[in-house]
Amino acid sequence: MLSTSRAARREAIAGSAPAARALPKGQQTKAAIIDAALRMAAQVGLEGLSIGALAEIMGMSKSGVFAHFGSREELQISVVGEYYSRFERDVFYPALQEPRGLPRLRAMFSNWMHHTSTEFDSGSIFISGAVEFDDRPGQVRDALVQSVGSWLDAMGRTIRQACEEGHLVQEVDERQVAFEIHALILALHYEARFLNMPGAVERAVRGFESVLSRYGARR
Amino acid sequence: MLSTSRAARREAIAGSAPAARALPKGQQTKAAIIDAALRMAAQVGLEGLSIGALAEIMGMSKSGVFAHFGSREELQISVVGEYYSRFERDVFYPALQEPRGLPRLRAMFSNWMHHTSTEFDSGSIFISGAVEFDDRPGQVRDALVQSVGSWLDAMGRTIRQACEEGHLVQEVDERQVAFEIHALILALHYEARFLNMPGAVERAVRGFESVLSRYGARR
Repeated sequence: MLSTSRAARREAIAGSAPAARALPKGQQTKAAIIDAALRMAAQVGLEGLSIGALAEIMGMSKSGVFAHFGSREELQISVVGEYYSRFERDVFYPALQEPRGLPRLRAMFSNWMHHTSTEFDSGSIFISGAVEFDDRPGQVRDALVQSVGSWLDAMGRTIRQACEEGHLVQEVDERQVAFEIHALILALHYEARFLNMPGAVERAVRGFESVLSRYGARR
Repeated sequence: MLSTSRAARREAIAGSAPAARALPKGQQTKAAIIDAALRMAAQVGLEGLSIGALAEIMGMSKSGVFAHFGSREELQISVVGEYYSRFERDVFYPALQEPRGLPRLRAMFSNWMHHTSTEFDSGSIFISGAVEFDDRPGQVRDALVQSVGSWLDAMGRTIRQACEEGHLVQEVDERQVAFEIHALILALHYEARFLNMPGAVERAVRGFESVLSRYGARR
């Protein structure tokens, strides 16, 4: 029998994964484990993930957790996949509602900045994962690189569309602009989360407007 | 007696800390331990530092290493201090040879970029340390924050001087410009070291020139 606190924790975890309700029981459990692992990884990093600690949080046996993931690496890859799905859901898809070109690019940056701000207290898997896996080849690193790469490609396409729509000058190198926007997000995370500097959000916004104005956008 | 490989490693380590030669024996040993720890931390992070592994590399006993550092935390703080000293030596001091204002700012960025490029294979303690210690209050975090903060302050002063010299427009907010320059370095490190993207150095340089031109500098 589960102890009260374990049951409560289990309920809290299940409650925060609403999409899992429509799934068969086994998949519900798997989704709940990934959800708990995602929150654990935000705190301790992907490399800090432990099947044992996760089993404890879930009120399951270690072998019960292993039944859903053949290895810790498979669990880590699932966590990266879930993180990226939520990133797309919160940052990319809402921006697709905006008109092609500059309005969509603004929404992508704004949503990305908002997403980064919600991670000042927990940390970003794309940023901590880069440090954890930059010298560790393997499937976890590949999953991270592919996720970040897809997102930067999407930014690049949107920048290119903004040129086609006449919102930015034609000669723009979309990789250059995506690099400069990515840079602002990395500095925002660094200065706000690590250095605790006030005003980082405002500096990121001003930096973004400068980038746009430099490449020909009218405000 | 030391084994040949240990002796060789010890010699290699001592050889790479030339400043230690003029010091008394105890301080020489301490400097050699810090030097080895610095290289270890570049690979495995400050949190990956182990007195045991360090003793093995140095051909010393664990208690011999402990005699120089009361704790692992004290060792980590010494490593941060040494990293910052070398950063100043390689990045900041040579730039002070350049005339006040824009020439010095250009040299600071150029040296910083070069320094970052030498770390594509090993990693930067200022970047990995930020991820390791962003949610761990304590003296190691304080030492890191203070080091990075001092450097950003120096950048800010140089930017202010560039305004006074008429190299940048008067209304420039030096914290804003320092933020944007720091951002480019973070993106350079991320895209080159983690994503293995070609062209990151060129993008950082172009980004820097754009920042300057936006704030009124003539090339």
